[in-house]
Amino acid sequence: MLSNKFQFNVLNEYENARVGQIISPRGKIDTPTFMPVGTQATVKSVFPNDLIDCNVQIILSNTYHLMIRPGVERIKKAGGLHNFMNWSLPILTDSGGFQIMSLSKLNKIDEKKGAIFRSHLDGKEFLLSPEKSIKIQKEIDSDILMVLDECPKLTSDKEKLSKSLNLSINWAKRSKIEFNELKGKALFGIVQGGLYKDLRIESLEKLKEIDFDGYALGGLAVGETQQQMFKVLELITQLMPKYKPRYLMGVGTPSDILGAVKRGIDMFDCVMPTRSGRTGLAFTWNGRLNLRNAKYKKDQNPIDEKINLKNLNQYSKSYINHLINSNEILASMLLTLHNINFYQDLMKNIRQSIKNGSFNEFYNRYIHII
Amino acid sequence: MLSNKFQFNVLNEYENARVGQIISPRGKIDTPTFMPVGTQATVKSVFPNDLIDCNVQIILSNTYHLMIRPGVERIKKAGGLHNFMNWSLPILTDSGGFQIMSLSKLNKIDEKKGAIFRSHLDGKEFLLSPEKSIKIQKEIDSDILMVLDECPKLTSDKEKLSKSLNLSINWAKRSKIEFNELKGKALFGIVQGGLYKDLRIESLEKLKEIDFDGYALGGLAVGETQQQMFKVLELITQLMPKYKPRYLMGVGTPSDILGAVKRGIDMFDCVMPTRSGRTGLAFTWNGRLNLRNAKYKKDQNPIDEKINLKNLNQYSKSYINHLINSNEILASMLLTLHNINFYQDLMKNIRQSIKNGSFNEFYNRYIHII
Repeated sequence: MLSNKFQFNVLNEYENARVGQIISPRGKIDTPTFMPVGTQATVKSVFPNDLIDCNVQIILSNTYHLMIRPGVERIKKAGGLHNFMNWSLPILTDSGGFQIMSLSKLNKIDEKKGAIFRSHLDGKEFLLSPEKSIKIQKEIDSDILMVLDECPKLTSDKEKLSKSLNLSINWAKRSKIEFNELKGKALFGIVQGGLYKDLRIESLEKLKEIDFDGYALGGLAVGETQQQMFKVLELITQLMPKYKPRYLMGVGTPSDILGAVKRGIDMFDCVMPTRSGRTGLAFTWNGRLNLRNAKYKKDQNPIDEKINLKNLNQYSKSYINHLINSNEILASMLLTLHNINFYQDLMKNIRQSIKNGSFNEFYNRYIHII
Repeated sequence: MLSNKFQFNVLNEYENARVGQIISPRGKIDTPTFMPVGTQATVKSVFPNDLIDCNVQIILSNTYHLMIRPGVERIKKAGGLHNFMNWSLPILTDSGGFQIMSLSKLNKIDEKKGAIFRSHLDGKEFLLSPEKSIKIQKEIDSDILMVLDECPKLTSDKEKLSKSLNLSINWAKRSKIEFNELKGKALFGIVQGGLYKDLRIESLEKLKEIDFDGYALGGLAVGETQQQMFKVLELITQLMPKYKPRYLMGVGTPSDILGAVKRGIDMFDCVMPTRSGRTGLAFTWNGRLNLRNAKYKKDQNPIDEKINLKNLNQYSKSYINHLINSNEILASMLLTLHNINFYQDLMKNIRQSIKNGSFNEFYNRYIHII
């Protein structure tokens, strides 16, 4: 049964890995979960219904992109983002913090006012404050909202990271006040601090004082090695509240996900399955295939003969290679769907192996392959 | 029941318009029929299964494109075009004649040898003779094959047209010999002659002497007015064999199709529904909508609330406008599917109105709207 409030239950554990379930008014989410990215109110190249056939239970969308185009008013008039894009299950929205740093032309971060930036599309100036980000996420009727934070680039400048962290904590408090315990919704805080143990702990402890419905880790998968990332996870997840969802933002490869689940993470998002699909890459249990490669011209086998979602196993690698070389949209459609299905299959296998006590076996079998 | 040979039956008539059925080993085709175009072994932006959900019974593909990329050998190795592209119903292939004139860099037409041209992709030189075109169409296992003809541009130079016509008749004879009554397949001749009544009749009569399984009209919808085209149809269809399919190549708008059915045509193909879909145009019973238009930004209604194929009626015009403006692939996917569905719906309504005697009513209601 669906709840009129946001809940999270831990159901099974295997060492630090856990299986859980988020229950929200718009649907249940089995964790560990992967959220395909619907940047501009669409998961690129996929019909919403086909996402559901892949067992996708939640998608992510971007406040930054939506506020610039089509704009919040238009989404409000459609009755919210779910109606607008024809997706009835939960949506998590990020706050815009990451795109402001990575995509826009940032003019100024003013601790009091917020971030002043120019759109990457047409240079139009926007201001995004913690309050405004939450207000937008409320207006588009997101299910899981993220606090606005400053997302510093990967750096060893500890003083800079520390200063940024304190600004983000201040913004997190203001985000929480603006959120105002909205029924059925969740607000997640974002732990920053780069690769510094003490800064990560300081960030987490201050966020815990504010008290959020879930805790995300930001500033990872931004150029550090997988081992560096895993090291941060090992130390920080142990200090994260056990009965709240733990979300590793923007991660990652199947191997990253497997390693992060082992270290206690519940939620993931990444453009990798969708973007890779559009560039000719297919994820499989034997690793990635680059279907642009000339060796596939003569390969009459499907990517994976076991997948019978939408007849995906009836398209040969030779045919997909032809579609890619001919710039045919069907190549993006087939490979994106394949990759989303693979990621969902990965999460299902991860959950299953935690439940039946074979997680370490599963981990050791695939961590260096996928 | 499917037949092991190619058959065509006329089932209902209303003045010159007729309902018929083609029966071929790969499937039945209700006529008048519209064939979506799968130029490069894919109907752009559509899953093959979704075509079937739209009741598409036959698609067209292009010998010219396929021979250049991926090449005939690769399609043969896949077990033919149907296997290669995952489409089990009938395929009509055109001979390459039209693309050689319109797309390639043509070097020379040599009546004996064939057409020598350079690929529009990489400039590689190819030779296509009547025999080679038929051989390729056989090798990729097409169901309805077209003779290779010369496709002159719209011109009033009667001498030029007459000369071209005679070359095409010669090639049609050679195509028929190469075809060699292949069981279960059909070979269609192509009537040329521009807008000249006597040339059209000469072309048709000479083709009838050779005796084909169906007769196509080429060189129309190439710049002449709709009235000029209808005039050619009026004179020529009366002389075409009654119990063989009549195919108007490369046509056209819904209005063109309606007018051509009235004048006795059974088969159509055109890139219009697919290409228009990719540029933001939707065909409806009230005419075309250009969904790029800013007036749709605030339009919360679907293109057509009656269509419930793949939830097409749940996407608002505002949302589709946003997808187009954001260069999202989903825009092409939704609009292409919508347009193919509209064209199939048009053909179904045309057949129905011929059967129940209301064709003229239907014609008068829509000829100036759609």
